Amino acid sequence: MTYRLFIANKNYSSWSMRPWALLRALDIPFEEVMTPFEGDGQQSAFATFSPTAKVPCLHDGDSAVWESLAIMEYIAEAHPAAWPQAREARAWARCASAEMHAGFPALRNECSMNCALRIDLGEPGAALARDIARLEALWQEGITRFGGPWLAGEQFTAVDAMFAPVAVRVRGYGITLGSPSRDYVERLLAHPAVASWIDQGIAEPWVDEPHEADCIRGRQVIEDRRQPA
Amino acid sequence: MTYRLFIANKNYSSWSMRPWALLRALDIPFEEVMTPFEGDGQQSAFATFSPTAKVPCLHDGDSAVWESLAIMEYIAEAHPAAWPQAREARAWARCASAEMHAGFPALRNECSMNCALRIDLGEPGAALARDIARLEALWQEGITRFGGPWLAGEQFTAVDAMFAPVAVRVRGYGITLGSPSRDYVERLLAHPAVASWIDQGIAEPWVDEPHEADCIRGRQVIEDRRQPA
Repeated sequence: MTYRLFIANKNYSSWSMRPWALLRALDIPFEEVMTPFEGDGQQSAFATFSPTAKVPCLHDGDSAVWESLAIMEYIAEAHPAAWPQAREARAWARCASAEMHAGFPALRNECSMNCALRIDLGEPGAALARDIARLEALWQEGITRFGGPWLAGEQFTAVDAMFAPVAVRVRGYGITLGSPSRDYVERLLAHPAVASWIDQGIAEPWVDEPHEADCIRGRQVIEDRRQPA
Repeated sequence: MTYRLFIANKNYSSWSMRPWALLRALDIPFEEVMTPFEGDGQQSAFATFSPTAKVPCLHDGDSAVWESLAIMEYIAEAHPAAWPQAREARAWARCASAEMHAGFPALRNECSMNCALRIDLGEPGAALARDIARLEALWQEGITRFGGPWLAGEQFTAVDAMFAPVAVRVRGYGITLGSPSRDYVERLLAHPAVASWIDQGIAEPWVDEPHEADCIRGRQVIEDRRQPA
């Protein structure tokens, strides 16, 4: 029985990206079921496969598993490599993942993910600056404490998947980070699972205006990688 | 080595309540370290024990574990009874817990927990009504699917602890629910661990004005259980 992962547009859906990148990184077979955003109509389409009418949602036979973090744990029960194998690193990875799941509100609101766009963010406001500072402290702690190159040690695990969309945001909005975090962003973006998601996102045919407007917010678009060179 | 759980005021701190109630319900020994809210000064005091300057935070020897959901998972690694033993119920419990961890924004914003107060909510707005409808659908699904009396089966587990502060809100704000959810709220409030937290919250000497104002928001206070009868 193969997992079925229900996702939305790769260009926009940061939550969909997380379990997708983990499954790909661990070479776990799954079937991808894509339902593109359709402005206000998305809720009803998503409700056909997800109890919260949100993406992502993982189906395993008759069972629906929703919420990114719960999907990670569900995968980890069958594939323990989803979390670090050392107990302390695993605990830390779960803390950082849960913090991402519910936190970093300014980063999520003001810098929506868009794989294709580069946008001039300008000077971050106070709330966004706080989120960025916390992000750097958290990443630096993980990489220092567990020795890198990934957040919680030698292997790419669920906590790296949780922060993969943040790497897209850092690049897309030109967010300035110190060197260990900058290196980590480059490493994440170069990971085959992450890079593959981004490439597929850029190649998508759909342009969803509400998402585009939410990304741009009157700021200057420096590059749109969907346009032919 | 005993766990040390860092919490804030029991009367207000819904996040602190969750792991505390779980540890108590499972009879797991722990030391409680209480730091009351102090208006704007809380951040710096909380930063002495928590990497996010937030409560709750669990210390196990030298390790700090933050974020309620990560604390639940950390406890569950040593005490598997923290989650349901049946795989499907466990998966569902994690989904519902993760949904509570990051969701129900109107319920959390408009109905802050206050163990002592009963407040006349009036007619819920659209966002709050949506949260309440989702809450009922979720609870009813769990109780029906896993047979009750708790959300994911016969035992009180982490998912019940995640919703314990919601029971306080339902009673405190007089939120109208259908019968299975109403019965579940009564069951939660009567659980010894939950009841004990509430009693201790009401008995606290501190009254934190920002929290009180956030609970009341110009609405009518029907009862303050801190006042002598």
